[in-house]
Amino acid sequence: MRAVRLHEYHHQPVVEQAPEPTISGPLDVIVKIGGAGVCRTDLHIIEGQWAQAMAPTLPYTIGHENAGWVHEVGAAVTNVEVGDTVILHPTPTCGLCRACRAGDDMHCIQSTLPGLSHDGGMDEYLLTSARACVKLEPLTRPEDVAALADAGITAYHAVRKAIPLLYPGTTAVLIGAGGLGHIGIQCVAALTAAKIIVVDRNPDALKLAEQLGAHHTVVADGGQVDAVKDLTGGRGAEVVLDFVAEQGAEHDGFQMTGRAGSYFVIGYGGTVTIPTLDIISTERNIVGNIVGTYNDLAELMVLAQAGKVTLHTRTYPLDDAVEALADLDAGRIRGRAILVP
Amino acid sequence: MRAVRLHEYHHQPVVEQAPEPTISGPLDVIVKIGGAGVCRTDLHIIEGQWAQAMAPTLPYTIGHENAGWVHEVGAAVTNVEVGDTVILHPTPTCGLCRACRAGDDMHCIQSTLPGLSHDGGMDEYLLTSARACVKLEPLTRPEDVAALADAGITAYHAVRKAIPLLYPGTTAVLIGAGGLGHIGIQCVAALTAAKIIVVDRNPDALKLAEQLGAHHTVVADGGQVDAVKDLTGGRGAEVVLDFVAEQGAEHDGFQMTGRAGSYFVIGYGGTVTIPTLDIISTERNIVGNIVGTYNDLAELMVLAQAGKVTLHTRTYPLDDAVEALADLDAGRIRGRAILVP
Amino acid sequence: MRAVRLHEYHHQPVVEQAPEPTISGPLDVIVKIGGAGVCRTDLHIIEGQWAQAMAPTLPYTIGHENAGWVHEVGAAVTNVEVGDTVILHPTPTCGLCRACRAGDDMHCIQSTLPGLSHDGGMDEYLLTSARACVKLEPLTRPEDVAALADAGITAYHAVRKAIPLLYPGTTAVLIGAGGLGHIGIQCVAALTAAKIIVVDRNPDALKLAEQLGAHHTVVADGGQVDAVKDLTGGRGAEVVLDFVAEQGAEHDGFQMTGRAGSYFVIGYGGTVTIPTLDIISTERNIVGNIVGTYNDLAELMVLAQAGKVTLHTRTYPLDDAVEALADLDAGRIRGRAILVP
Amino acid sequence: MRAVRLHEYHHQPVVEQAPEPTISGPLDVIVKIGGAGVCRTDLHIIEGQWAQAMAPTLPYTIGHENAGWVHEVGAAVTNVEVGDTVILHPTPTCGLCRACRAGDDMHCIQSTLPGLSHDGGMDEYLLTSARACVKLEPLTRPEDVAALADAGITAYHAVRKAIPLLYPGTTAVLIGAGGLGHIGIQCVAALTAAKIIVVDRNPDALKLAEQLGAHHTVVADGGQVDAVKDLTGGRGAEVVLDFVAEQGAEHDGFQMTGRAGSYFVIGYGGTVTIPTLDIISTERNIVGNIVGTYNDLAELMVLAQAGKVTLHTRTYPLDDAVEALADLDAGRIRGRAILVP
Repeated sequence: MRAVRLHEYHHQPVVEQAPEPTISGPLDVIVKIGGAGVCRTDLHIIEGQWAQAMAPTLPYTIGHENAGWVHEVGAAVTNVEVGDTVILHPTPTCGLCRACRAGDDMHCIQSTLPGLSHDGGMDEYLLTSARACVKLEPLTRPEDVAALADAGITAYHAVRKAIPLLYPGTTAVLIGAGGLGHIGIQCVAALTAAKIIVVDRNPDALKLAEQLGAHHTVVADGGQVDAVKDLTGGRGAEVVLDFVAEQGAEHDGFQMTGRAGSYFVIGYGGTVTIPTLDIISTERNIVGNIVGTYNDLAELMVLAQAGKVTLHTRTYPLDDAVEALADLDAGRIRGRAILVP
Repeated sequence: MRAVRLHEYHHQPVVEQAPEPTISGPLDVIVKIGGAGVCRTDLHIIEGQWAQAMAPTLPYTIGHENAGWVHEVGAAVTNVEVGDTVILHPTPTCGLCRACRAGDDMHCIQSTLPGLSHDGGMDEYLLTSARACVKLEPLTRPEDVAALADAGITAYHAVRKAIPLLYPGTTAVLIGAGGLGHIGIQCVAALTAAKIIVVDRNPDALKLAEQLGAHHTVVADGGQVDAVKDLTGGRGAEVVLDFVAEQGAEHDGFQMTGRAGSYFVIGYGGTVTIPTLDIISTERNIVGNIVGTYNDLAELMVLAQAGKVTLHTRTYPLDDAVEALADLDAGRIRGRAILVP
Repeated sequence: MRAVRLHEYHHQPVVEQAPEPTISGPLDVIVKIGGAGVCRTDLHIIEGQWAQAMAPTLPYTIGHENAGWVHEVGAAVTNVEVGDTVILHPTPTCGLCRACRAGDDMHCIQSTLPGLSHDGGMDEYLLTSARACVKLEPLTRPEDVAALADAGITAYHAVRKAIPLLYPGTTAVLIGAGGLGHIGIQCVAALTAAKIIVVDRNPDALKLAEQLGAHHTVVADGGQVDAVKDLTGGRGAEVVLDFVAEQGAEHDGFQMTGRAGSYFVIGYGGTVTIPTLDIISTERNIVGNIVGTYNDLAELMVLAQAGKVTLHTRTYPLDDAVEALADLDAGRIRGRAILVP
Repeated sequence: MRAVRLHEYHHQPVVEQAPEPTISGPLDVIVKIGGAGVCRTDLHIIEGQWAQAMAPTLPYTIGHENAGWVHEVGAAVTNVEVGDTVILHPTPTCGLCRACRAGDDMHCIQSTLPGLSHDGGMDEYLLTSARACVKLEPLTRPEDVAALADAGITAYHAVRKAIPLLYPGTTAVLIGAGGLGHIGIQCVAALTAAKIIVVDRNPDALKLAEQLGAHHTVVADGGQVDAVKDLTGGRGAEVVLDFVAEQGAEHDGFQMTGRAGSYFVIGYGGTVTIPTLDIISTERNIVGNIVGTYNDLAELMVLAQAGKVTLHTRTYPLDDAVEALADLDAGRIRGRAILVP
């Protein structure tokens, strides 16, 4: 089969022939890929940022955001059948550790990350587990939903945690209206009645944000912290969701957060530097977020299939993967790029 | 009356005569002071650290941790009567803003801080509000409980927020076994079945910690992060309560916090510096804490009056206030210093 | 002033002259009434159902659902000024008990209920407390929002408690689309992405329900439990909000509730009769609800002023109060009847 | 092997030879039984109360409360090995449904109940699933902990849900100090600082209750509701945990529950009959409880292995099962009867 394979860090991956995966365990599932999202994390992988933490054996196939159709199942699989349309949680989990037994899939002590630790889904067939499969309505087109598998679940997970803080009269600031942020805006709008302020450097991204539910947009041109303060009566926001968390956003985010408020870190790359006096004198929180639970993904698919979350995507043939990665890197993508094998 | 008054920053306060306060508003209460705690914040006030934020008119009377007896009440006071033994919440609040109406006294938009913004309680009579008075059993000695008014409520508030995270099988690390920490240990022991690890530089403080409920103690001599990792199977703790948050503790605290865990900042003075990648890859939280609610103080008094929280104190006559401040600054106090007028 | 006064149980109240209230306490507020809602509880008062519990001295003025303009304030009132447009929480509270300090206004141990325990607001001027006043945008017409003061807050309070149970993919059943229910539907639609099923005997009420956000409506003609089961894949609903809770609804409600679900009792009049085996074998809950907090009312006003909750009302001059009560009793009101002095 | 098998409803089971179970699925586990608890539900099974709901094919082996050692494992089992000491969650679950993925094992849509729906654990070898096994310290004696597998988890699950309601100053009433209740008392004492009142008909059970942590005991001789009211200042308790819920306890329980309080139903057999007016006017809740999660059982084992929960048991050889059942039925057991094969 065709696959997008990384042979060397700091070099572009190569689209080439690779062997198809095979079933070995009773809960194994092989999925025929219908759509594979292109994520900023793929750029970071190529740059070697994940080399030490994930230690994949090169060459390997990247891609961790997938939907498709069940192609083959192991002996003990009961939740999906061959032919089912599915979207895949990014981490096949053990199902037996404390975290799994509490539903916190992202903290499974034995989880793997196809596309980071070993062969992923920018190819024709992906080996995953029954526990990673969320069954969809049969006619769903995988390319239309694939971006929910990673960008979507991550945005949804953070928003869901913030819901109790976002009662009527409160404000949610979202920093970054790109791949994750444009989904996050729709989740906040669908699940709360909070005022939504979106901050981004890119005016086109802000136009999209308005169409998706933002009540106010702020261009990040240097005055963004003051602008948010002005829009919140000087108080700052109850919740700031930072989908960027680098290049200065990580400083803005905490400053935009009001007394007793919470700053949700979702993006990464920067470093927060905060006097403990500022944390305690206002009792503000900094909240970590990573992917989401299996049920988060299932809930998000309910929103998507009800039309409450729609994706802005641009599709590329699998063989054009390198072009898609370059477009993402250059800021030429609104929403998400999707490879279609 | 005698009062401990600050005339100039960076100079010791003076114990001198000062006029007694008078009732002017319908909810005003004057309390005859029975005990006034000496807090590290008093040292910070003298150093001028709060000069800009609180802007008191010098000279003024310091002291923000008090218990005593009701001496006089305004026309609309219904919850206490003259002669009642009371402990005082540090912030008289408006009772009408959103935060007050939610019970979040420490976020009242009109609260004042006697002892920081204007005359406090290192004297014979303090002007406060009906909303700050928690009524005690009549025979309670104010000097025995005064330290709960600020050190106690602050420790209790943080511990109470951590309870849902501290189910059986989890670990709570407490950094600092001094004024706040020695109360925090007892609160964790009274309200959870978590394993308690206490970290402090001072071996005497750790001995006290063991008597108060610590299961393990760790001397902070450079190997404290590794020691906590060892005691938690390499994982770190679900909850770290940092009563120091300066002089390096603020770096240790986050490192001692395990995957999906929470680092509670309670002390202050240092600066946290954390890559956002470290926050998201493990989904850790940094939780701000400030004082506590009126009900927090009332609940803590239940624990105290049941003997589940006991204070380690050393009393000084009010006229020896400068000596008490010096002893605190030099690390000669185990638990809390209390002035008795 | 004109007032609707009850002279004898089981007889219609009389619209007659009554003395205006006067300020006596520092937190007293007199409000010029702009709108007074007519509630099923008023019918129950006339029938004597509240005589024992509330023990008002007859004759007295009924009316417990009010909005208007501040007319006079006591010496210590700081949150409103003469001329402000306000809606009134139904219970002036003490502000000092445990419940008040936790924000649970409806459980204040010293609260009074104007309109039930003593003179209420079906008149020109009402005596209440600063703590009951929620300030509105100046141009709000009190008659347009008065129904939110009791019907609205009660519906909102129950819905807000149910939000964590109503994640995407779940179902909320609302029994009764009248005064409370037609507000409840809008609250569920504004604050969750749950599927909304509305059950009522009256096809006109169901038409209104559809316009307000119901995804499915069910006529309560005997087959309503089966219909809800059919609409929920045989499982029943995660949440049932019963705004009727009499005349059989209280039996339907629990049966419509699925495994691990919650049946919210909001209306009253009937009796639930449930084998404890049915409660435990499915781990279902029965949740009591009464009025709501001050902050609940403030939040609801945010929804109302944003147009997310709109009221269906029919206004009557104050002098036509008896006609309004008769129309309500006869089922001739869609939404809520409002008296305008 | 020897097994306690039910041949006919309303007749005592027979201890006889039965075939040993065999592994067929990849997650199957066979456990050599070290202790099998005797539960009131076994009496109800014999009486035919579960015949319709569970529909086992007679004859079959009863017993649903077990601990022992792993004897054989299926091909995909990774969490336990042959020889491990284990306690068994009563319901092997699918691990793939929404409830399982949220950690709510007791609501698994495909769960089975060995001992109710098919062969259970009053025998020498039990077939269960990897997902039901909680690994214990190797030297734990199964007969010492078996009662935690059902009585324990059920009591713990209810208490854990009640913790947020049981802050200092509140009261927990426990009705019934038998098999479940005597564990519940210890859980409340270990996890909260609430005042504990225990109600039982049997003075010996109340003596045990005092030793286990009850602050007050009340003989259920007709005056128990008044006694609880007296002990709670007339208000009733914030939490009532009813381990009986039949023979009148189900009426007492709701009456003992104070304003805004919660009545937890854990036992079964009776019928609650409550006017909806009583539910709403005080905003009380009735909370269903069934078994508990896998993690509940794991947490309870932490308490047990730390000595915070100890069991009062009486052991019988497996062949004396009928005598043990008779002793339970006659009220001759303090704590729990355990069969040892």
